[in-house]
Amino acid sequence: MTSHYPWPEGKRAALCVTFDFDGESPLLWRQRNDPPADIAELEQRRYGPRRGIRHVLDVLGRAGIRSTFFVPGWIAQNYRGAVEDVHRAGHELALHGWLHEPPAALSDAELRDTLTRAADLLGEISGSRPTGYRSPSFRMAPAAFGVLAGLGVTHDSSLMGDDRPYRIGELVEVPVDWATDDAVYYRYTGAESRPPAGADALYAAWRAELDGARASGTLVNLTMHPWLSGHPARVRRLADLIHHAQAAGDVWIGTVGELAAHHLALGPGAPATEAPLDTIGWPR
Amino acid sequence: MTSHYPWPEGKRAALCVTFDFDGESPLLWRQRNDPPADIAELEQRRYGPRRGIRHVLDVLGRAGIRSTFFVPGWIAQNYRGAVEDVHRAGHELALHGWLHEPPAALSDAELRDTLTRAADLLGEISGSRPTGYRSPSFRMAPAAFGVLAGLGVTHDSSLMGDDRPYRIGELVEVPVDWATDDAVYYRYTGAESRPPAGADALYAAWRAELDGARASGTLVNLTMHPWLSGHPARVRRLADLIHHAQAAGDVWIGTVGELAAHHLALGPGAPATEAPLDTIGWPR
Amino acid sequence: MTSHYPWPEGKRAALCVTFDFDGESPLLWRQRNDPPADIAELEQRRYGPRRGIRHVLDVLGRAGIRSTFFVPGWIAQNYRGAVEDVHRAGHELALHGWLHEPPAALSDAELRDTLTRAADLLGEISGSRPTGYRSPSFRMAPAAFGVLAGLGVTHDSSLMGDDRPYRIGELVEVPVDWATDDAVYYRYTGAESRPPAGADALYAAWRAELDGARASGTLVNLTMHPWLSGHPARVRRLADLIHHAQAAGDVWIGTVGELAAHHLALGPGAPATEAPLDTIGWPR
Amino acid sequence: MTSHYPWPEGKRAALCVTFDFDGESPLLWRQRNDPPADIAELEQRRYGPRRGIRHVLDVLGRAGIRSTFFVPGWIAQNYRGAVEDVHRAGHELALHGWLHEPPAALSDAELRDTLTRAADLLGEISGSRPTGYRSPSFRMAPAAFGVLAGLGVTHDSSLMGDDRPYRIGELVEVPVDWATDDAVYYRYTGAESRPPAGADALYAAWRAELDGARASGTLVNLTMHPWLSGHPARVRRLADLIHHAQAAGDVWIGTVGELAAHHLALGPGAPATEAPLDTIGWPR
Repeated sequence: MTSHYPWPEGKRAALCVTFDFDGESPLLWRQRNDPPADIAELEQRRYGPRRGIRHVLDVLGRAGIRSTFFVPGWIAQNYRGAVEDVHRAGHELALHGWLHEPPAALSDAELRDTLTRAADLLGEISGSRPTGYRSPSFRMAPAAFGVLAGLGVTHDSSLMGDDRPYRIGELVEVPVDWATDDAVYYRYTGAESRPPAGADALYAAWRAELDGARASGTLVNLTMHPWLSGHPARVRRLADLIHHAQAAGDVWIGTVGELAAHHLALGPGAPATEAPLDTIGWPR
Repeated sequence: MTSHYPWPEGKRAALCVTFDFDGESPLLWRQRNDPPADIAELEQRRYGPRRGIRHVLDVLGRAGIRSTFFVPGWIAQNYRGAVEDVHRAGHELALHGWLHEPPAALSDAELRDTLTRAADLLGEISGSRPTGYRSPSFRMAPAAFGVLAGLGVTHDSSLMGDDRPYRIGELVEVPVDWATDDAVYYRYTGAESRPPAGADALYAAWRAELDGARASGTLVNLTMHPWLSGHPARVRRLADLIHHAQAAGDVWIGTVGELAAHHLALGPGAPATEAPLDTIGWPR
Repeated sequence: MTSHYPWPEGKRAALCVTFDFDGESPLLWRQRNDPPADIAELEQRRYGPRRGIRHVLDVLGRAGIRSTFFVPGWIAQNYRGAVEDVHRAGHELALHGWLHEPPAALSDAELRDTLTRAADLLGEISGSRPTGYRSPSFRMAPAAFGVLAGLGVTHDSSLMGDDRPYRIGELVEVPVDWATDDAVYYRYTGAESRPPAGADALYAAWRAELDGARASGTLVNLTMHPWLSGHPARVRRLADLIHHAQAAGDVWIGTVGELAAHHLALGPGAPATEAPLDTIGWPR
Repeated sequence: MTSHYPWPEGKRAALCVTFDFDGESPLLWRQRNDPPADIAELEQRRYGPRRGIRHVLDVLGRAGIRSTFFVPGWIAQNYRGAVEDVHRAGHELALHGWLHEPPAALSDAELRDTLTRAADLLGEISGSRPTGYRSPSFRMAPAAFGVLAGLGVTHDSSLMGDDRPYRIGELVEVPVDWATDDAVYYRYTGAESRPPAGADALYAAWRAELDGARASGTLVNLTMHPWLSGHPARVRRLADLIHHAQAAGDVWIGTVGELAAHHLALGPGAPATEAPLDTIGWPR
């Protein structure tokens, strides 16, 4: 029988509700050398900081839960009022690049510089420097962990190697899962080959994830985007999902930072994976 | 808490039922330099002006609602009887290119010429020049707004930057959403990598969109195509969706032109986004 | 209000249950110049003539309905016993190329030669030459209609320009629809980018098609493949669908040939589209 | 009426629950010449041997059934404890390459060498050499059957030519089906163009497969992967599926090896396909 991870408050399972507050930043990064002639996707993504974030903050406020927002520095600079509102509502601000740059696309020095600039700005907004990071695109190069540790970052939330917090390098990893990333289901900007999922269908799938976690004693770490999940039909189902977790009674709900701190406090006796960092398994 | 937009008649949310009456015109444009040897997709698309439009007009007539039809000039020329029937049934005729040309593919002069030709013909059919426009493919170049204003067009319905009417350049934007575009779900011409959605599944998804809009006080702007949604199983579910909105009682239903006029009448006090037109956000 | 087509026996709608009895022939045609090193897809497709056809004939026999089987000559040659069983069970045999060749890939002479060879063999099996044709891939070149008429073929079932029988060239067209082609949903040979649909989900979608046709007075023309729909879970749901149509009472069920003959017998007074054959609509 | 296959214990249908215990080995093989700079997919796949296998063994143990695990030699070498646990729990260990190499990518000598090395290791763990094989990717070259027979392998489970055991070359084939391979539905590593299926939706589809097999007297041979189906929401639904088969009462459940031995014991009188091996059907 699988031994159970000791979640905070003696709960049976855990739920982190997190947002990658990207807006148009991934598009600006991706097409930085060839800005498109039209403004279609730009306007579509601006829905996030303009409108989606308002609907999201409404839902989180009514549910009374704290979330983690991974905020590219460019968004904090260009939509500062919205990011200040996120902080004022009690949510954690964490790093997500300056312009949504994936770490593997940067040198170590570039990664350090962009993150330092973003950390300065987020720290200015929230009053304390961010200690969490999520890689745009969920791709992590081994060298990035050292850069993050050097910046005072204590936890990452980008990898999928477990269903409980684990250790990798000097950091705590609070794992994610493609299956609970809204972009996989909702992103549609005109060229995707499948339609966006319906909000009800995704609610059913994620509720099954939550019930599976309750049965297995594991973590569900939702990754959402205000320009996608901030739309009315979707945000309404997010409210239902949070309500389902709260009504269950056996699910701890909190921020990624709180969970990482809890894991560190458990010390070496915690049932936890130690992921390899130096060697990545390729046969030689 | 999100402040609510003042919809017409004091309603809580709004629904526009719109049709891009494309028929075979997108195929004729796309393959204008290499007409295919076979007539498969041509016949498939002709289903729209031949049969689909009849089923659609039946449903709208029974429901007693007015819709907006975006009609390429070529369709008005080649299926004039069908377009006259649309006008006679009380629906708005609006611009959609001459042969479904996306504005970014044309020079400003070409855009002006094709739209002038289409506006002349639609004006001849309806007795008044069209004042609305939708970009084929939902892609808008900033320069197109000036061309449209010069042609007397007062509203556009192509962008996704809000869930309420907003301002961009000199026009009112009545926003759309990929999630409520039937082509994203139904278009299948032999090479797509996913099957068409079932009519019941799409009905469920769109009803959730409508209920989400009612909860958030926002707009649902359906984009449909007679060659797709005009098929019996689909048009039947469209009737159900309209009935659901009518039965709810709190949803205003009308044309895009009516909604744009309402927004203009609200004046500068309306809660509305001003989208940037000159600068499109790219870092320099 | 849409005028209704006079279906046989005064019924409200019509259902044709048809099979493209392809087996491995499309693969043999497609890779005729580079046979693959492995036998994976070959064995997967052989499931049709080995096993799927048995399950299909069971279901049709129990339901007591007659279907149309479009049979490539190569299949009749290599699985003659199975094709004889299809004929003996009372179903219509019709043309589908010799080795599943799409007509646009052949010269007129090649098309005539391959179809003559196939018609000879099917005529030998059934005692009368086939009078129906379906294009492999649903693609029809205008010139193919003349070749077919020259071979004594009176009806085609490949195009999608209506939801009732119509005229094109000298032939009656009994239209099909991608939405009711099982391959669109079920085909998965290892490289497709979506999983196969579940049998229950497709049953729900197709039952909605049937109910839509009953509401609109139109035709549902199912296109199925024994190597796909012959699998147990799927054939079981086909039985349910036929039962649903039979229980409704207002649906005529029969072969494509019977429906084409009915349409011819209606004469010039029938409400029917005349599709263009010589000009295919491209702007000049 | 289709004659029924005589399943063990006089049951009406059969279910094999099998696992391809791949972990990161397919990625290591695929990118052996260009290891990626990031560790995203590597960590995602390590979830299988780290955590998924524990959830899977829990479910199988509680249900009290025996499964077949196809284990690449590299996995047995690098996660020996987990593979020993699989054996100790009573499950069959079978061949799946050394590093998940598809047979068509290897010479006969290379295939023999990699499989010999894997068979040595699996034999060391279980105390008896494996007698079963599954091709990574389900692709089988005709020559591979001779190599397998030379290694003492008596059964293969890679092809799809029937829904009962059959003969090919000197081996018994226990057929599989893409429709019951979890990777087709669940695999999502960042570049796929469709989202992963929800666990409830796949459960519904697979239960329909099982009920179809019970109606038709055929085999369901599930192919699962601990790094995919080992996630909590999914493993929970696998438990439900096994429970459904057990509760039905008419379904034999066992290993691939047991079913192959049963088929051999039936002798020449068994209703069975003889698949061609030398000639693969291409027209000459």
